[in-house]
Amino acid sequence: MIDLSKISTRAPEGLDKDKTKKKTEKIAKRIGELAEIMKAQKKHSLLIVFQGMDSSGKDGSTEHVFGATSPSHVSVKGFKKPTEEEFAHDFLWRVTKEAPAKGMIKIFVRSHYEDILVQRVHKWVTEERVTQRINAINAWETLLIEDNNTTILKFYLHLSKERQEEKLQERIDIPEKNWKHNPGDWEERKFWDEYMRVYEDAINRSVVPWIIAPVDQRWYRNYFIASKVLETMENMDLEFPILKDGQA
Amino acid sequence: MIDLSKISTRAPEGLDKDKTKKKTEKIAKRIGELAEIMKAQKKHSLLIVFQGMDSSGKDGSTEHVFGATSPSHVSVKGFKKPTEEEFAHDFLWRVTKEAPAKGMIKIFVRSHYEDILVQRVHKWVTEERVTQRINAINAWETLLIEDNNTTILKFYLHLSKERQEEKLQERIDIPEKNWKHNPGDWEERKFWDEYMRVYEDAINRSVVPWIIAPVDQRWYRNYFIASKVLETMENMDLEFPILKDGQA
Repeated sequence: MIDLSKISTRAPEGLDKDKTKKKTEKIAKRIGELAEIMKAQKKHSLLIVFQGMDSSGKDGSTEHVFGATSPSHVSVKGFKKPTEEEFAHDFLWRVTKEAPAKGMIKIFVRSHYEDILVQRVHKWVTEERVTQRINAINAWETLLIEDNNTTILKFYLHLSKERQEEKLQERIDIPEKNWKHNPGDWEERKFWDEYMRVYEDAINRSVVPWIIAPVDQRWYRNYFIASKVLETMENMDLEFPILKDGQA
Repeated sequence: MIDLSKISTRAPEGLDKDKTKKKTEKIAKRIGELAEIMKAQKKHSLLIVFQGMDSSGKDGSTEHVFGATSPSHVSVKGFKKPTEEEFAHDFLWRVTKEAPAKGMIKIFVRSHYEDILVQRVHKWVTEERVTQRINAINAWETLLIEDNNTTILKFYLHLSKERQEEKLQERIDIPEKNWKHNPGDWEERKFWDEYMRVYEDAINRSVVPWIIAPVDQRWYRNYFIASKVLETMENMDLEFPILKDGQA
């Protein structure tokens, strides 16, 4: 059982920031190379899920981990407040059609998990419905793995409450970040403890394991996530398909 | 009037390859930075169209020009042989929903132009229908510009017939390129002159001007296209939206 309060949100002591940043750049390049092989081979697909509190760095992680991958090989789907049409369907309706095709990497910035997080915190769903949804999520993720050779990496971006305050304040203080400012984020922050409780429960009831990424320092966050992604891709037996004699 | 046979497919004489490659890398980084401002500002959108003969480098251009842009800010739509459902609709049906949202860059690898190129070469459409389609394309592109503040950059990747043969042969000879080999490309090559004729006509009857990119050398192709994209973005009055007093 995972207890988030027992897991550090920071880099291990003594890690060199500049060296780590350089490593991350190299890893990101290698991810880009492997992504091309994945595309060529059309055998595997990779689904990355980024979930975390506001300002935990979902977009920043996308940029630094996949910033050296051709947009031909990776695409991003951000899940925002559902539209009227989406609300008129089951919660997975808008999600299932976004599953990655063979050969592709898909990044979910927020995901189907929102429907058992924000909705649960505000009690817009009953606990019974939450359990039904968790079962549906586990069944769908299993389907992707078994029926489309998809690897799923779900990252919980683990941010401390103190660091969130600093980052939200930056969005007001730094002009280039003003566009990220949203007064609603400060409102949601008041529900911090309740969010931790529902995240923990979602993580512990998930069949596909979550990866807890310490994100208080951006440089370590990027390195941590990039390393996990690369490790996963290195283990995928990726190779360019080769023409056999007489195939040309 | 553009006469493709009069336009060079190669880099200007005397251009230094290594220096140009380095310049392209810098330009690609700058494009990535401006893409973030575009996303933040949510005022402009950019549609890039890549059209050209097989092996002219549509995917390679995507990778090198936008390889340093976060996948949060750019996405690629490749248009392949239409599905049954798509064939059951007008030719623009599958295209219009792929228009870039405000703040986003969308790359079309092949596009709505296929329906007046490959279909015309093989006489699957009448000349009357071709004219109707050209009118429809001009109307739709005008709509994007006028009604969604979209800038459209259409690149014709101008490849020589000799260079195409070398590049198609590489796909057979080099194992890492085998996956790109498609015997159908050699068949289509037999219609080269007819393709040139319909491309030229499409280009000359377009309201939004085409950019003719010389692509025989990959390094110059990347530089040429990246420069045009950057020049366009630099002229877009992109800026981060700044909070006014009392807005936070």
